Amino acid sequence: MPGAGRAAGVRRLRPQPSEEPPALEEDQDLLLAAAYVSDAQYNRNVPFETSPRAIRLYYFYNHWTMQVAIYFFICVDLSLALFEEPALFPLPFLATSIAEVLCLIAFFGRLVHFAKVTPQMVFWKDTKNICIMVTIALTLIDLIIYGSLEAVNIHSVRWSRALRPVFLINFPESRQIRRTFRSIRNTLPDILYVFLLFMFSVLIFSLMALKLLGDRGLRTVEGLPYFTNILEIAFELYVLVTTANSPDVMMPAYNFNWWYSLYFITYIIINTYIFMSVFLAVVYNNYRKHLKNEIRKLAYLKRHKMMEAFNILKVKVGSEFVVMEARWRRLARTVMPHISSPHLELLLRISDEGQKGYVDKMNFLRLADLLNIQVVTMNIKRHPLEEWMPWVYQSSASLLIQRMVRHRIFVWVYDIIILINAIFIALDEKNPFISYAEWLFLSLYIIEILLKLYTYEPRAYFGKKQFWNWFDMLIIVAALVATVANTTIQSASKYNSQQVLDIVLILRILRLLRVIVSIQRFRLIVTTLINIGPTILTFGGLILVVYYVFAIIGMEAFHGKVRFFDPNFTTPDALVCGNPALKDSAFARDRHGTPPPPPPPQAACSLGWVGRERHPEGLPGAPRAPC
Amino acid sequence: MPGAGRAAGVRRLRPQPSEEPPALEEDQDLLLAAAYVSDAQYNRNVPFETSPRAIRLYYFYNHWTMQVAIYFFICVDLSLALFEEPALFPLPFLATSIAEVLCLIAFFGRLVHFAKVTPQMVFWKDTKNICIMVTIALTLIDLIIYGSLEAVNIHSVRWSRALRPVFLINFPESRQIRRTFRSIRNTLPDILYVFLLFMFSVLIFSLMALKLLGDRGLRTVEGLPYFTNILEIAFELYVLVTTANSPDVMMPAYNFNWWYSLYFITYIIINTYIFMSVFLAVVYNNYRKHLKNEIRKLAYLKRHKMMEAFNILKVKVGSEFVVMEARWRRLARTVMPHISSPHLELLLRISDEGQKGYVDKMNFLRLADLLNIQVVTMNIKRHPLEEWMPWVYQSSASLLIQRMVRHRIFVWVYDIIILINAIFIALDEKNPFISYAEWLFLSLYIIEILLKLYTYEPRAYFGKKQFWNWFDMLIIVAALVATVANTTIQSASKYNSQQVLDIVLILRILRLLRVIVSIQRFRLIVTTLINIGPTILTFGGLILVVYYVFAIIGMEAFHGKVRFFDPNFTTPDALVCGNPALKDSAFARDRHGTPPPPPPPQAACSLGWVGRERHPEGLPGAPRAPC
Repeated sequence: MPGAGRAAGVRRLRPQPSEEPPALEEDQDLLLAAAYVSDAQYNRNVPFETSPRAIRLYYFYNHWTMQVAIYFFICVDLSLALFEEPALFPLPFLATSIAEVLCLIAFFGRLVHFAKVTPQMVFWKDTKNICIMVTIALTLIDLIIYGSLEAVNIHSVRWSRALRPVFLINFPESRQIRRTFRSIRNTLPDILYVFLLFMFSVLIFSLMALKLLGDRGLRTVEGLPYFTNILEIAFELYVLVTTANSPDVMMPAYNFNWWYSLYFITYIIINTYIFMSVFLAVVYNNYRKHLKNEIRKLAYLKRHKMMEAFNILKVKVGSEFVVMEARWRRLARTVMPHISSPHLELLLRISDEGQKGYVDKMNFLRLADLLNIQVVTMNIKRHPLEEWMPWVYQSSASLLIQRMVRHRIFVWVYDIIILINAIFIALDEKNPFISYAEWLFLSLYIIEILLKLYTYEPRAYFGKKQFWNWFDMLIIVAALVATVANTTIQSASKYNSQQVLDIVLILRILRLLRVIVSIQRFRLIVTTLINIGPTILTFGGLILVVYYVFAIIGMEAFHGKVRFFDPNFTTPDALVCGNPALKDSAFARDRHGTPPPPPPPQAACSLGWVGRERHPEGLPGAPRAPC
Repeated sequence: MPGAGRAAGVRRLRPQPSEEPPALEEDQDLLLAAAYVSDAQYNRNVPFETSPRAIRLYYFYNHWTMQVAIYFFICVDLSLALFEEPALFPLPFLATSIAEVLCLIAFFGRLVHFAKVTPQMVFWKDTKNICIMVTIALTLIDLIIYGSLEAVNIHSVRWSRALRPVFLINFPESRQIRRTFRSIRNTLPDILYVFLLFMFSVLIFSLMALKLLGDRGLRTVEGLPYFTNILEIAFELYVLVTTANSPDVMMPAYNFNWWYSLYFITYIIINTYIFMSVFLAVVYNNYRKHLKNEIRKLAYLKRHKMMEAFNILKVKVGSEFVVMEARWRRLARTVMPHISSPHLELLLRISDEGQKGYVDKMNFLRLADLLNIQVVTMNIKRHPLEEWMPWVYQSSASLLIQRMVRHRIFVWVYDIIILINAIFIALDEKNPFISYAEWLFLSLYIIEILLKLYTYEPRAYFGKKQFWNWFDMLIIVAALVATVANTTIQSASKYNSQQVLDIVLILRILRLLRVIVSIQRFRLIVTTLINIGPTILTFGGLILVVYYVFAIIGMEAFHGKVRFFDPNFTTPDALVCGNPALKDSAFARDRHGTPPPPPPPQAACSLGWVGRERHPEGLPGAPRAPC
């Protein structure tokens, strides 16, 4: 990527003969420089052709509508799994396959667009593009095979569905996810040796357990042989590291001779405490190291792109190369068409501190970072009421109200009101008095908002960055609307809608979150959490990819293998959960070891047990010894 | 503390009239300076009097025998809990109380010694000393009250036992533990707000659960009312953060309407994932910050003490103050009496690089750190066999053997032998062939050790810092001794001792640890773990203190409240585990909900269930719905 950029730079230094008039050439230069600055601003690292047509296509490629469109198609493609067999909301194969083909066409179009922007050599060398093309081809092949087999009523497997996240990862827009993935992948070799040593330690302990306890004829509480197979021991000991089967796994040995507890204490100290902590430390340290490297590389690329832009626009003044003010202004306006004039002037004042009429190299290179700084334009205006009726707004009573609202005690009073409200919510609401209190609290909150709007200038109070004021307002308004809607529905139709009531309840409780707004330290923590949100979302994307692939594979592999929802024992299969392989297993036995209790109103155990099965060794045995 | 030190320094700058002869004065100076250097070397921050008698007492106070003695008495005092009622190994009250009084006398003596060393003002202002004195007094009062009540057969509580860790914390020797404790305590205010916000979040969610699910009349799998009490909900939700009751706690709501899963998903994302991670991050960051502060303070104090020592010993040479070489040597010999001559010369060479005959201030201040660097004196000697019989040792066959042993392949061959050995151990040892193989492996390992001793100079191979060689050797020798002992016992008395056999088995498996020795990266990790050992041990001390206090209180509070070990239902109490308060509780029901199975050979459930009770809500219900 730096290579391609440098080539473009070299081309600019030795201008080739051009038949375009100078003014157009100047425009082209500006457009190219603006593309570099924009790439630096958004950390895009896409090498692109510098021909006028390619630049215009590149602008179009980066336009937000195109990005939204591609993300829309990726979402559609991924969510198809909800509608395909075995599905939550089944749709005919024809419908889903048409939707999928549409998505594939969109992806292919995007790729063709990208190929027109980027140099041919770079395009064909980039694995990301090859990946997308191969996946499109494989998906089409799979669709055709599956469709034709389906037509002759042979059921086959839609294996290409597990490949769908490839689109999410490999489009240039997902560079954040790819970067995170790369950091994780680079971390793996560093933790490998700790992992191997940990495995070695588990194996040594398994061997010891096998030799010490394997021949004793001990039994677990479930009556199964205890510690007789080295692989089972290793698995049990691995689970012990997660503490999920503690202390069940130790009990037979402990009951045989309490000296064996020394073995388990040693194991837990070494593996659970030391190795797990060392793991965390090593992963943290190495991830941090590789993330730093990634960021360093990003900073280098950003600087490089800004240098390209500077080289295009520079003129010589005295002994140094600079960018003239007029050109700088046009560049900034090209990069951010909607920039406000005061914002532009502010950036210029920072970049040209001496007001020399030009921006030098050091200050020019900072432009990408400056553009990323969010600037709030605050117009200090008088309150509208003051303009309307100054004689009322400036009266002593009005001024007293304003001073009161601005006072700290006003905040405290409302904190106490919220507290009382919380207590009222916790009490039983059957009491009619409490239902009246609800209206009282609601009106108190609305009075607060009105008082604040009276005191503070509304446009400043609900300004762009006044997140907490918006938050406060929204909670109150939502609760008001929901309560009014609920009352209307109840009184109009005598029909008590459970859904609306639930929402009203939740909104009523969410109102208590206003406490966060009034406590500075809480606000700080929540703001910090919101700021790290994008990073967490990137991880979320990565997790989505992993979950999606495994979910599709799992759905194809295990669909129908275990059946629940048979509380009435109508089929003989019920005893083995629909799968003969589960006969006499702990999974099936735990449902049938005791005489069947009366079936619950709904199949109560189904998901609970599936959840439990993640730690099958943690299952409690049906027969238990008395105390 | 710096104040006291500064006073001493000032006293030296304006020497007071002394009747001692100059030589003795010089000796006193050296002794005082050495005390400062030694304090700096071991990070001791004890202000002490500078009178000759006090300095001599201070040397005695810091002598290792005194330290060992005081730790011995602390251990005895703490371990008394094992012998007192309710005890593991009961001893009569008279015996334990005499032992305790002896310990108290030792602590008091140590304190008197300290009072003679440190200035009176400082001694009485130090909370540590007051703490020890108060604890001694309280313990004596408690002993007298308990003893006299016991004499008239009234049973009372030995409450002062919970105070015993005070001695462990408050003697100056435990400054590491105190420092850790201080770091943790300083970290608490910083995490307070995150904790409060977390509690607030749990309460808001509890309130929501109460309102959404409390009136639905749902029941848990155990048939108890589900989510009807806000405190119970808050507790269940807190446990959900630890994932211990997941997914049981969600099942009733999920079975009622699967939309309620959104509530739990939100809760888990916010509280389990985000808040728990933020906790870890905040604790880590703040602990690190405070630890850095502690270390900075230590470095400052160390430098201050070295300055004191320098001010005592300095003479003016030219324009700068320096310490003459002869005096520097005497100082180093006073601080470390057992320092070897080459080591001393090495330190002098580092401190006086220009060989000017004196040590300047900068280099003098480094002395405390230099003394802490461990130096290994390696005497490169010829192999004893070479001196004895050079014609044999230098023969071509002997040289070939030596080259072979030094070769990498030699290491690899033995790695493979260890691997094969591991497989043989995993196989059944009833096979006589495998028992012979055991002897084969043992002799192979002994041959390896002998070959290494033949090739490398034995004193260098088993040098002071050759940890891994010692490790290797010890494992083999221990396995050899144990195997021989076992065979002898077996063949002599036809009596198969289980204990000896177990030890032989463990040693045989521990031999596999030799793989760590031959893989560089493994050795690195283990060495790192050993290096952080002292820090972990400090935490261990802190944990011991906390556990001890809670164990003593718990023993007094809950002793005899719940009874196990009644498999035969001989007493009516068995149904409620000896405590009527447990009637109909999940704890008691889970033993009696099912008809009693035949009693196991030993009371199998006792400890297992006590362990489980840490998460009582994680208990599986006896009646389960079928699948």
